[in-house]
Parts: sequence; structure tokens; C-alpha cells
Amino acid sequence: MSTEILVRDDGPVRVLTMSGPSRINSIGASTAEQLCDEVVAAERDDRVHAMVLTGEGEHFSSGGDAEGVLEAGLSRDDDAMIRFMRSYQRAALTIWNSPLPVVASVAGIAYGGAFNLALSCDLIVCSENARFCQVFLRRGVVPDFGGAYLLPRLVGMQKAKELMLLADEIDAGTAERLGLVNFVVPSAEESLSTATGLAHRLAAQSRMAMSMTKRLLNASTGGTLQSSLELEALSQASVLGSQSAQKSFEGFRER
Amino acid sequence: MSTEILVRDDGPVRVLTMSGPSRINSIGASTAEQLCDEVVAAERDDRVHAMVLTGEGEHFSSGGDAEGVLEAGLSRDDDAMIRFMRSYQRAALTIWNSPLPVVASVAGIAYGGAFNLALSCDLIVCSENARFCQVFLRRGVVPDFGGAYLLPRLVGMQKAKELMLLADEIDAGTAERLGLVNFVVPSAEESLSTATGLAHRLAAQSRMAMSMTKRLLNASTGGTLQSSLELEALSQASVLGSQSAQKSFEGFRER
Amino acid sequence: MSTEILVRDDGPVRVLTMSGPSRINSIGASTAEQLCDEVVAAERDDRVHAMVLTGEGEHFSSGGDAEGVLEAGLSRDDDAMIRFMRSYQRAALTIWNSPLPVVASVAGIAYGGAFNLALSCDLIVCSENARFCQVFLRRGVVPDFGGAYLLPRLVGMQKAKELMLLADEIDAGTAERLGLVNFVVPSAEESLSTATGLAHRLAAQSRMAMSMTKRLLNASTGGTLQSSLELEALSQASVLGSQSAQKSFEGFRER
Repeated sequence: MSTEILVRDDGPVRVLTMSGPSRINSIGASTAEQLCDEVVAAERDDRVHAMVLTGEGEHFSSGGDAEGVLEAGLSRDDDAMIRFMRSYQRAALTIWNSPLPVVASVAGIAYGGAFNLALSCDLIVCSENARFCQVFLRRGVVPDFGGAYLLPRLVGMQKAKELMLLADEIDAGTAERLGLVNFVVPSAEESLSTATGLAHRLAAQSRMAMSMTKRLLNASTGGTLQSSLELEALSQASVLGSQSAQKSFEGFRER
Repeated sequence: MSTEILVRDDGPVRVLTMSGPSRINSIGASTAEQLCDEVVAAERDDRVHAMVLTGEGEHFSSGGDAEGVLEAGLSRDDDAMIRFMRSYQRAALTIWNSPLPVVASVAGIAYGGAFNLALSCDLIVCSENARFCQVFLRRGVVPDFGGAYLLPRLVGMQKAKELMLLADEIDAGTAERLGLVNFVVPSAEESLSTATGLAHRLAAQSRMAMSMTKRLLNASTGGTLQSSLELEALSQASVLGSQSAQKSFEGFRER
Repeated sequence: MSTEILVRDDGPVRVLTMSGPSRINSIGASTAEQLCDEVVAAERDDRVHAMVLTGEGEHFSSGGDAEGVLEAGLSRDDDAMIRFMRSYQRAALTIWNSPLPVVASVAGIAYGGAFNLALSCDLIVCSENARFCQVFLRRGVVPDFGGAYLLPRLVGMQKAKELMLLADEIDAGTAERLGLVNFVVPSAEESLSTATGLAHRLAAQSRMAMSMTKRLLNASTGGTLQSSLELEALSQASVLGSQSAQKSFEGFRER
């Protein structure tokens, strides 16, 4: 049975869990599609203000499902292969573009597509035993889930090439030093509770200002300073008219 | 009384000081506009070869003036709000685009817009007691002064989101480790003297080659390697014809 | 006599050596053009799967040939100067765009254009005595070999400006901490053997998947996540149909 997405709410925080521990939560096309659907469902639910993404059991995920990748490859049908890739990409893109902030909680293995899926999240917490690997070239394929775009902007080109071309595993400490993860904590349980705690802090902010800030940050990776400033001015004008901003500034003035 | 820009010259180095210590040098629209005018005036003065930007007293600046932001917000006039934002943006953009190098000297608080204004400078020196915070979301607004563009390219997306979405304060040591600041020194006085010393070193270089190098670096944040190489070739052709380059190379040959 | 490119093969690894030790392997227009030709020749040779770039003797290279730069500058012929620059740029661009991975082995001095030429390589190994310097402004010229594009994306804008505007030398440890180099080893000999060992590891991978991964990473520096995903999908579809990927996945399935 392939990995499914389990959904539970902790107040305004929706926790999405990749569940298929016997296959190390490997991500098939159907897993990616379900993840996509759940992220969109969370956005549409006014009660949800932030998300956590994690894996069931000891590990985050072993990445793309080898069986499915092989099948798509063996089909020798370009269209089928590209449709298969699109399911993966849509999952990363939907998290990246979500108006809600997403915190990844990574324990154990985060390999290949799972590594890159974590990079599409806004914050990453991991346990000390976390192990990250851009395993793609070892399988004769190229990095997917948008990793080749996200990684060099995060760690610089020389380090990104080291991780992707040599495909060596790195541990939690190295990931933290490279700025790949925000927080390292002792265990898988603490990783999930820390990630959930951060998600609660994000959820307590203005949902509108949070989503606009995330969009401004993401938009900055392409384009120029000038185009970024246009978006900044329009976002600020919108958000300044919101009740939440006005209350905050009035409170600030009264101090 | 709102924060003003004090101007003094130290040989070829022009020192611009945000002065309004009773309000922690908060930046109103008029402060930003005056800063803009002074940066342009420095460019037009052949005697000035570099600038220092600092704050009067214990702190760099608390950032955008809350009173003014609130007023713009309460006006419910989109046009007024966008005009207000443009004053802020123009200050950051004018420093960023200035042909002259600008060194920021930061002591104490550099919050919100003041943090991002420092990022628009070319080098940043700070004192050990400096405290940086992307405070915007706490006030229900989005980051301004171009910060959402500059920060993720500087520290990577995951760290930039941590700083902007969680809005926690960071100290001088963390800022240095993240590459946000170039030098940390013990006190506010030493910060200003170090910054001024660096500005003198920059001022001693060819003004033409300095300004072209700054432009090449800034231009690199958008566009492709190919477009960057075009600009590089044209800049080098211009600068190689300059007396300063020819003297330097002749001196080099004679050794 | 100007610096020449020596060529030797170590199995599937082609080692290119800048040889002109009496001039610290300085790079003239003819050196750059020969380097370019050799990189292209390696791509066209099916037996070659990876390259190493190094310098003869104690040093990597002192950078652009001062004599040649001066001559181009003194010519006061814009066209000649731009042609001169293009030779330099083409060397960096050809390494950057090569379908084959290139590992730089840097000992001693890597100054100016030589520093930036190393940045156009995919991985950099250096010896503990390596010294890097963006020396350009000291000579009254702007950075070349694409450095102003590559450096700020690698170390962030504030650090890039520090290195280029102040033009101070940094040592191997600093270069490693900044993510400029991948590995630091004790001696020049170990640097070359480590670089060659890494090149052998890269050469053992699928040549097609390696070259596509390198292209995806390089392409990510311009454009948007969306455009990067398009390239990713097409690359994956191509590579999945390759024998190498299918064998790898079948092996993986059988375990």
C-alpha cells in the first residue's frame, strides 16, 4: 500500500503526516497528489492558520517512489513521464505558494524528493539523527521537486553542486551549519513538538500579513529589486488597511 | 520633532547621521526623503568619494515611524499609502544605486525598516550590543525598504523566513555568522571609527572603477550570467581607458 | 613566454594545467583561448567524463596577464578591449556551461581572474596555503571572468562587496567557511590528488544525468521556480528513458 497523507488539527495548526512507514513514507504520484489536495484544503479552511509537514514513525521520507519512477521510465512515453513529474512538482509548488506558512519536521531519513519537499516548506526543524541526501545521481536521474532551483539559492552554488553531484549524505549538524534547517532538537518527538510550537506562533500572526510576507520572500528569488519593490508597496498598502495592522499600531502608539 | 539627517565631511567621506535620539531615530517619510536628497547631493559633489550612514546616540534606528505608518494606514487612501511607501523605498534604492560606496555603522537597535536600510548599504559594521529585528509581522505589516528582496539572497530562504516570519531579535554575533554584517567591534564609538576608516579605504580607490564594480555586483542579483557578462565587458572597456587604471598597470609592470 | 594549457588524461578524467610558473601562471588572452578550446575538445571526446583544472607548481594563477590588460587598455580601441575581455569571459563561460563536471585544484595564489575562473568550476579543492583575492580595484579595473555575477550568489551581497570593494586577501580557512571552496587539504599535492579523486567519482556517474543536473543547477541562478520546473520535467523525462537510469532503478527494486 502506498504512502497516504494523514490529517489532524491542533487548534489553528493542521498537521499533515506522510504515512507509509513500511516503505519509509516513500512518495508516489498519488501521495504527492493527496498532499497537494490537503494543502489546498487547508488554505480554504478559515480555521487553519499554519501547517506542519512530517513523516510517520522513525523517518521523514525516502523520497520519490522508486517503483513509480521506474514504471514511468519504462513506459517510454514522454507524456506519461512528464505527467508523473508534474504530480511531484505540484506538491512542492503548492506548499511553496501556499498563503499559509508550513513548518517541516524531519527525523531520520530525508532523501531525494523528500529533501527537496522539505526545502519548499518555510521553516525546517529536524532531530539530531536526521540524514539528508540528494540521492538522485546515484539512481541516474536528475533532482526533482524543484531542488535544483531552491538549493543553490540557499547554500551557494559550490555547496549545492557538492551535495547534488557527489550525492553524499549529510547529518543534522551540517544541515544546520549550511542554513538548510532552522532548528535541530534531540529527538523525533521533540522535532514534531517544536515544529508544532513554531506553527502556533506563525498562526497567531495576522493571516493576511503572514501570507503577503511569504509571497514577497518567495517572489524575491526571481526578478529585480525594482519589481520586488512594486510588490512590496502594493502589499503594504493592502495590509495597512487591515484591522489587524491598525490595532497593532494603535497599541504601539499608546505605550 | 521628527528625525533629521545631519551631514558632516571627514575628508572625502561624507557622514550622514539619523538624528532624533528621543524617538530612537525613527524614520518618517520626511526623514527618508531628506536621506535620499543627501545621498544624491553627495554623488554630485566631486569631493565626496564614500559615505557612512549612522544613528545619533546609543542606537542606529527603530525603523519606520509608527505614527506615520498608522496615519497612512488610517487614511484608507491607497494612493497616500503607496506614496508613503515610495518615500521609504526611494531611500533604500538610492543608497543601493548610488555610484558611491556606503558603509553603515550600527549600534544598539536596528529594527524593521532600519535593518533593511542597513542591508541596502555596501558594508555594515556594528557594535557588540547591536540588535537586529525584522519586527514587521509583530505590527501586522509586511517588510519594507526592500528587505524581502535583499535578505533571502543574503542568508538563504530558510533563514530569511525564520527572521521575517518569526520576527525574533538577533544579536551582533548571530548577524556576523549569517553574513549580515561585515565587522563587529566592541562599542558604538569604535563602530563609527571603523566604518569611517573603511569608507576612507573605499574613497582612496578609483571612483569610476568603484562605482562600476558596485553596479556589477548589484546587477547580478537579477538576470543571467550572460547578461552580467555583457555589462562586465562594457564596464571594463570603459574603465581600462581611464588614467587611474593605466597608471596602476604601468606601476605593476615596472616592479 | 605566456602561460600554456598542458593536457593529460587519468582514465576518464582530463587534467588541464595552466603552465607558466615563472609568471605565476598568469592568464593571457591566448591562455584563455587555449583553455576554452581544451574544454570543448574534452566534451567532444567520449572517453572523457570529468575534468580537473589546476596550475603548474606552487600556485594556481595570478589571474589576468597585466601586460595584456595594459596593452588592451592603452590601445584606446574599444573594440580591441572588448575582444580581449571576451576571451576571458569565454573561458569562464565555457567551463560553467560544459556538460562535463570540472573540479578546480587550487594551491598558493588564486588572484583576480584566476579566483573567478575557479568559481566557474563545479567543485573547488584547495591546499591550506591557498590565498584568494579579488584584486581588481587595486589595479583600477572591475572584476572579470564573471565574478561579479557568481560571487554574491555564493556568499551573499555584503560579503561579496567586502571581498571586491576592499580587495583584501583571504586564506583557505576563510574561503571554506564562506562556502567558496568545498574541501581544504594540507598540501598542493594532496589538493591535486583529492580533486582528481572527486573527478573520478563524478566520472563514474551517468554522463547524461550529470550534465543535466549541472545545467539545472546553473540555470537556477536566473529565472523563476516555475521556469526551473519546466526544465526539470523535460530533463527528467529524457534521463528516465536512458539505459543507465533504468538499470539503476531495476537494481534498486531487486534489493
